[in-house]
Amino acid sequence: MKNIFFCAIIISIVACQSKNNNKSKASKIATKEEKLDSTHIKQFFDSALTKGKSYEWLRDLTQNIGGRLSGSPEAEKAVKWGETLMKEVGLDSVWLQPVMVPHWIRGEKEKAYYTVNGTNQNVAICALGFSIATPEEGITAEVIEVKSLEEAESLGDKMKGKIVFFNRPFDNTLINTFAAYGGCVGQRVRGAAVCGKFGAKGVIVRSMTNGINDYPHTGTMSYGNLPKEQQIPAAAISTQAAENLSADLKKNPNLQFYFKQSCKTLSDAPSFNVVGEIKGSKTPENIIVVGGHLDSWDLGEGAHDDGTGVVQSLEVAYLFNANKIRPKNTLRVVFFMNEENGTRGAKKYAQLAKENGENHIAGLESDAGGHTPRGFSIQANDKNTKLLQSWNKLLAPYGLHDLVKGGSGADISPLKNETVTLVGYRPDSQRYFDYHHTATDTFDKVNKRELELGSASMASLIYLMDKYLYNNTPIKP
Amino acid sequence: MKNIFFCAIIISIVACQSKNNNKSKASKIATKEEKLDSTHIKQFFDSALTKGKSYEWLRDLTQNIGGRLSGSPEAEKAVKWGETLMKEVGLDSVWLQPVMVPHWIRGEKEKAYYTVNGTNQNVAICALGFSIATPEEGITAEVIEVKSLEEAESLGDKMKGKIVFFNRPFDNTLINTFAAYGGCVGQRVRGAAVCGKFGAKGVIVRSMTNGINDYPHTGTMSYGNLPKEQQIPAAAISTQAAENLSADLKKNPNLQFYFKQSCKTLSDAPSFNVVGEIKGSKTPENIIVVGGHLDSWDLGEGAHDDGTGVVQSLEVAYLFNANKIRPKNTLRVVFFMNEENGTRGAKKYAQLAKENGENHIAGLESDAGGHTPRGFSIQANDKNTKLLQSWNKLLAPYGLHDLVKGGSGADISPLKNETVTLVGYRPDSQRYFDYHHTATDTFDKVNKRELELGSASMASLIYLMDKYLYNNTPIKP
Repeated sequence: MKNIFFCAIIISIVACQSKNNNKSKASKIATKEEKLDSTHIKQFFDSALTKGKSYEWLRDLTQNIGGRLSGSPEAEKAVKWGETLMKEVGLDSVWLQPVMVPHWIRGEKEKAYYTVNGTNQNVAICALGFSIATPEEGITAEVIEVKSLEEAESLGDKMKGKIVFFNRPFDNTLINTFAAYGGCVGQRVRGAAVCGKFGAKGVIVRSMTNGINDYPHTGTMSYGNLPKEQQIPAAAISTQAAENLSADLKKNPNLQFYFKQSCKTLSDAPSFNVVGEIKGSKTPENIIVVGGHLDSWDLGEGAHDDGTGVVQSLEVAYLFNANKIRPKNTLRVVFFMNEENGTRGAKKYAQLAKENGENHIAGLESDAGGHTPRGFSIQANDKNTKLLQSWNKLLAPYGLHDLVKGGSGADISPLKNETVTLVGYRPDSQRYFDYHHTATDTFDKVNKRELELGSASMASLIYLMDKYLYNNTPIKP
Repeated sequence: MKNIFFCAIIISIVACQSKNNNKSKASKIATKEEKLDSTHIKQFFDSALTKGKSYEWLRDLTQNIGGRLSGSPEAEKAVKWGETLMKEVGLDSVWLQPVMVPHWIRGEKEKAYYTVNGTNQNVAICALGFSIATPEEGITAEVIEVKSLEEAESLGDKMKGKIVFFNRPFDNTLINTFAAYGGCVGQRVRGAAVCGKFGAKGVIVRSMTNGINDYPHTGTMSYGNLPKEQQIPAAAISTQAAENLSADLKKNPNLQFYFKQSCKTLSDAPSFNVVGEIKGSKTPENIIVVGGHLDSWDLGEGAHDDGTGVVQSLEVAYLFNANKIRPKNTLRVVFFMNEENGTRGAKKYAQLAKENGENHIAGLESDAGGHTPRGFSIQANDKNTKLLQSWNKLLAPYGLHDLVKGGSGADISPLKNETVTLVGYRPDSQRYFDYHHTATDTFDKVNKRELELGSASMASLIYLMDKYLYNNTPIKP
């Protein structure tokens, strides 16, 4: 598409379609206030798409700093980067919130293989966050394949001395890929805790992704209350390796699997949330927070997870300033630290908000990737949920159709109470788990327009919440 | 996202959200027929996402054949590939429709540069389809920059002996990138016709894309009725080159621009539309056609334009067969030849349909890329437009919100009459012009799930049209 010369008619149809679309949508917008809102929303989109900054900010964060796991030198650099940038954007005040974070390091590159018919099969593997190392010589053992924690649990002592292989794939029929993730991630998080208590030697887990490829996806795990002597090493293997291993086990059930990793958890390290705000013009004591997380896993550059959320959150403030729209309530931008393995930044932020008697009326988090906008997930009381859903005609022209009740995000949900309206930005989810927690989560996977449309979507929602939640939410005494 | 262990609550929220979503949407589906429709639509999506074939078909077409401009050996191979594949899928009958197509060849790689301050600036350039060559020694001339055909026209004789540089950029504030394309493509198509008559030596045109990068985008142009002696060479330069040249012209208005190309138009070549069908169970004399175009530009692999449309169209038939759903009307799959530079295949198909007294009740074309589904553009009478729009609750759970009146596609629109319902599949447009007509339109830019969701979206609409247009459209006497 499109042979335009021979199909001049088609072009004019496309052009008319676009105009008619806007017209028919505009004609449904009846009131004067709605017209004003529609104008401001268009300003946010126009500015983001023509003079947006988020893409170059993201390039800098991902390519000059890169992966930035909590406690790492890169995370420290990212804090300074964030503080400097917030000041450059001209926020009224910028500060750091000190927070102690877990400090897990990967160590040497992991190694895994097994032998079938005399041939070594190398396995793409990576340690899971918080896992212990293997002994220095690695672990070699037979493998038991299971599809769930329940199946593992039912094996009991049979897993003693074995490596348990969790191989439950994503349910690809789920349109929302986060639902598929939710259906599998338990094996990654709790696999070692379940198998350690029965004396398994280690666990390996199929990577959390829709497709079949060679990249292992890391992510956090936990031993729960398991005593130290029962803790066993846990790693992820690529989906291609999982498919191969499963097939090979059918023919060679006694094959010996070897893996080695040298990760460890050091003492907690000092770090920071980066915070900046535009003071509200009417009720500065009421706060609307917008944020993403500054830390990332170490294998890629932390682009979609969650560099995009960080730069979009700051771009919201930039878009208010660029369009000379001053929020009535205080607009606070937060780059949260340690979402990936601890959410210590989120907890610290909520704790300080409580201690300081701050009144958060709303929050918006972007931590679902930087893909094309689809909508928002609303965690609020019924009244405010309905209010937000009533903005659908203002948001639909920008592809924001999904205004659904649901979770918001790991970093803002500790703020939850009876009155606060918490929202998660929801871009299209189809490509997210191609990159999530793996080496391919790099800057080149982010499309400039998709990123900017996200910033503008978020600014639009913040604008509406700032205006309409203002009279809607009681100010704390 | 997501630190699941520390945020088990979040997971359950996400999971609940997904379930509730489905539930709330399902609960609005009232009638028995709607329930059945909803079940069949889910079958299409489930099959596409778990046993879809389109991605591997596309890999084969793009990587083993590649770019396939009309008249080229690759286009010939693609015809054989299509015929073989349709037979493999088990269509009831498969045949080729002979059609003569234009045969333009690019020749040697084009070359362009200019000199500022003694330094050669190389320019990324490519000839436009149907352009004539430059003389063998190339063209060297001063450059006049314009932003529109009207501005060029107003220059009149001032452009004599000059190269006219059309540098109108995309309007990036348009959310639908096809509208931005529609606002610029006239300079590519008609620039040479306008400037040739005033004695310009050649035209160079800013590439049709949203971003700034180093890839020239080709595409068709036409001399209209311009006599042969007034025809001048036309080429596209990359957006980065256009930005640089524009800046350099401000400082050096008399700089000499050089370009050379050796393209030419040969005699028309024999080729084919590839056609296959599943015979209708009730009214086989009524036809629903689904298609994309098999030819592509030569610079890339013709992945998003339009390999994706081709494999999705065939996957529609595959999904009907795989789910043992037999259409009431005949379902015809067409791989059209020569959409890019001539639409001869489309014209031939419509001409034969008329000659053979075929009754097309509906058509669906996929030629807007293989990105994530957004909806359909409906070219039909008001009654049928409303009917299609009434299916929104069945389609919305799959991200298909845009059911708008508009154009359908270059290959099916010659079938237009009073009763036929023509529809264009409309995936998300944000990334399309990153790849369109350029060297980066390659297989690796296509996401498997996005492609498969498109096939299922198309199958779902075809299913509904097959069922509900059946009693709705008069059979021709």
